[in-house]
Amino acid sequence: MADQYAHADEPRQLTGIPAIRWEEPPEGPVLVLLDQTRLPTEEVELVCTDASALVEAIRSLAVRGAPLLGVAGAYGVALAAARGFDVDEAATALAGARPTAVNLSVGVRRAVEAYRAACETGATPGQAAQATLAAARTLHREDAEASVRMAEHGMALLEELLPAGGHRVLTHCNTGALVSGGEGTAFAVALAAHRAGRLRRLWVDETRPLLQGARLTAYEAARHGMAYTLLTDNAAGSLFAAGEVDAVLVGADRIAADGSVANKVGSYPLAVLARYHHVPFIVVAPVTTVDLDTPDGAAIEVEQRAGFEVTEIPVPQVQASGPGGGVPVAPLGTQAYNPAFDVTPPDLITAIVTEGGALSPVTGKGLAELCARSREGATG
Amino acid sequence: MADQYAHADEPRQLTGIPAIRWEEPPEGPVLVLLDQTRLPTEEVELVCTDASALVEAIRSLAVRGAPLLGVAGAYGVALAAARGFDVDEAATALAGARPTAVNLSVGVRRAVEAYRAACETGATPGQAAQATLAAARTLHREDAEASVRMAEHGMALLEELLPAGGHRVLTHCNTGALVSGGEGTAFAVALAAHRAGRLRRLWVDETRPLLQGARLTAYEAARHGMAYTLLTDNAAGSLFAAGEVDAVLVGADRIAADGSVANKVGSYPLAVLARYHHVPFIVVAPVTTVDLDTPDGAAIEVEQRAGFEVTEIPVPQVQASGPGGGVPVAPLGTQAYNPAFDVTPPDLITAIVTEGGALSPVTGKGLAELCARSREGATG
Repeated sequence: MADQYAHADEPRQLTGIPAIRWEEPPEGPVLVLLDQTRLPTEEVELVCTDASALVEAIRSLAVRGAPLLGVAGAYGVALAAARGFDVDEAATALAGARPTAVNLSVGVRRAVEAYRAACETGATPGQAAQATLAAARTLHREDAEASVRMAEHGMALLEELLPAGGHRVLTHCNTGALVSGGEGTAFAVALAAHRAGRLRRLWVDETRPLLQGARLTAYEAARHGMAYTLLTDNAAGSLFAAGEVDAVLVGADRIAADGSVANKVGSYPLAVLARYHHVPFIVVAPVTTVDLDTPDGAAIEVEQRAGFEVTEIPVPQVQASGPGGGVPVAPLGTQAYNPAFDVTPPDLITAIVTEGGALSPVTGKGLAELCARSREGATG
Repeated sequence: MADQYAHADEPRQLTGIPAIRWEEPPEGPVLVLLDQTRLPTEEVELVCTDASALVEAIRSLAVRGAPLLGVAGAYGVALAAARGFDVDEAATALAGARPTAVNLSVGVRRAVEAYRAACETGATPGQAAQATLAAARTLHREDAEASVRMAEHGMALLEELLPAGGHRVLTHCNTGALVSGGEGTAFAVALAAHRAGRLRRLWVDETRPLLQGARLTAYEAARHGMAYTLLTDNAAGSLFAAGEVDAVLVGADRIAADGSVANKVGSYPLAVLARYHHVPFIVVAPVTTVDLDTPDGAAIEVEQRAGFEVTEIPVPQVQASGPGGGVPVAPLGTQAYNPAFDVTPPDLITAIVTEGGALSPVTGKGLAELCARSREGATG
């Protein structure tokens, strides 16, 4: 179950509570999540004492973002082990909470493997739980390190593509410290450019329906003092037409073996606009996002979410009135098409930047080699 | 000043109050508008007793939509004349209320010309006011007739482009009976297809920031029993990629002499997507939308609207908390880029459908000829 640590009533600056942390109070270990659905106006933490609370937090997007979901999944398995729940059952529930996010199942699997390896070598349940937690912590640390390297490689690519500097970067959804153990993926690259004095403007797509750009990316950009401007997703076309976008930087939820990228819905139209306007479209994601078992874009399962995310606006201050608990903005009974992701084919992607380097052009062969090099690096 | 006739508390079906009507109660003539900002949950009418109330209603989008703005502008001048206000002053204020909407200034001009012509022939103020009102009524009737003809020409074009029928049409913003003296522009074509049993699906873009698609087009589609599905603007890319869109139908706020079309922001990205996917992109607008004095797209002045339309969500049920009176969805102090329109160049437009016929391909020469024919028809 989940409890709440509310910081909202304290009259203080929003200061950047970590997106996820493991704590061990006397009542037993817990996983504490910053509830991202309440940002930017409230910083409220959700305290998960079991995997099912975490599954609910993942489904409701209280915790989200491809890399962070991997870390969360691993901690979720560690939580089940530490509290004596059925680890396999918890792992199955966690891995299925968001079907498109490959990192989630990868993180869950790594923790389960650590648990099983410990059990097979005769560890006590307590020792097995410790081994599982250690695996989750390692993944968390690796993720933070991957952010640093993605930022370096991404920044180098920007400098190569846009030697004049003064980058005006358009981004979609949220890909910063709220999605990662570190500073994120695409956002980390923009942040590196900002720190180097090379970012002229971060254009932030609001990212309907859940407004992760407005609520989360703007929050992170404001905290870092970046020059940012918010826009509705459909105003991006005007920016391209006016020559105001030098590069598009987005994250990824799953990258198929052919280089097709599933990412937050709205990424694909940006890729088409970028192509039409000869602007680089760059995907930034850790190697764990690549799923070589998914052959191509058509094989990516795209999560369809509830229509009320589109037909209602969630307003915590108002008594629930629509079926989804929000304020209706469409006639009652309106059907909505609400895919969480879309798929961008490799020929529209200028480069995929990972912690192992940038791949450009994006080909299946190049992606396979990058993954192989990355695995060698990890085991060497 | 504006008063309200509230229908919201009456427990009844939303039945379709006219978007605009002239009334002459004993206290003097008034212009009654259906307040489109309150739809779809409430039907509230705004009663304007002078031009400045109408200017405010136009600015707040209580009344909107290119053709209807022309009708409203003409009635606004008639109202000033009937109530003895300065007609020129009222006309200037009305024409400037929304700079991109050419129909507004055309409607204002027609009414002013009728007023002046009456004054020059020695009419009493009462007679001049009657002449002005007659001009507004004529424009209103012509607009309704133009809707009928646009629907016919648009339907014929759809049948020609898509002979197999079962059209799946994507539309943006609101272009139905709420924008016109008749059944509208692009929506009227979709409605004609629906009545002919040829419409398989109307895909309705929600149209951020003001959600005219969700609030108004869905409301009109539901009233007509059309098969419609709502989507966030950025989910349109997935529909195109899946081959689920046979044609895009949009309206226009201003058409330049070269065939460039200014329309609700988000139209241009749809035109780029349509081109990329080889789907017809069709603009439906009355000839009054063509402004031969504007040479090309670059010369179209695009209205920039307040940032709070993006950074806040208007929720009438909640006490104002953001600077714009809505619920903030972005950190306080967030700057927003909020153009009301974008401009689609003629080479991305398959056809422009007017009451005088369909123009395809879209060229400056063809547009000039269409306008000339239309003027001959009007004077002949």
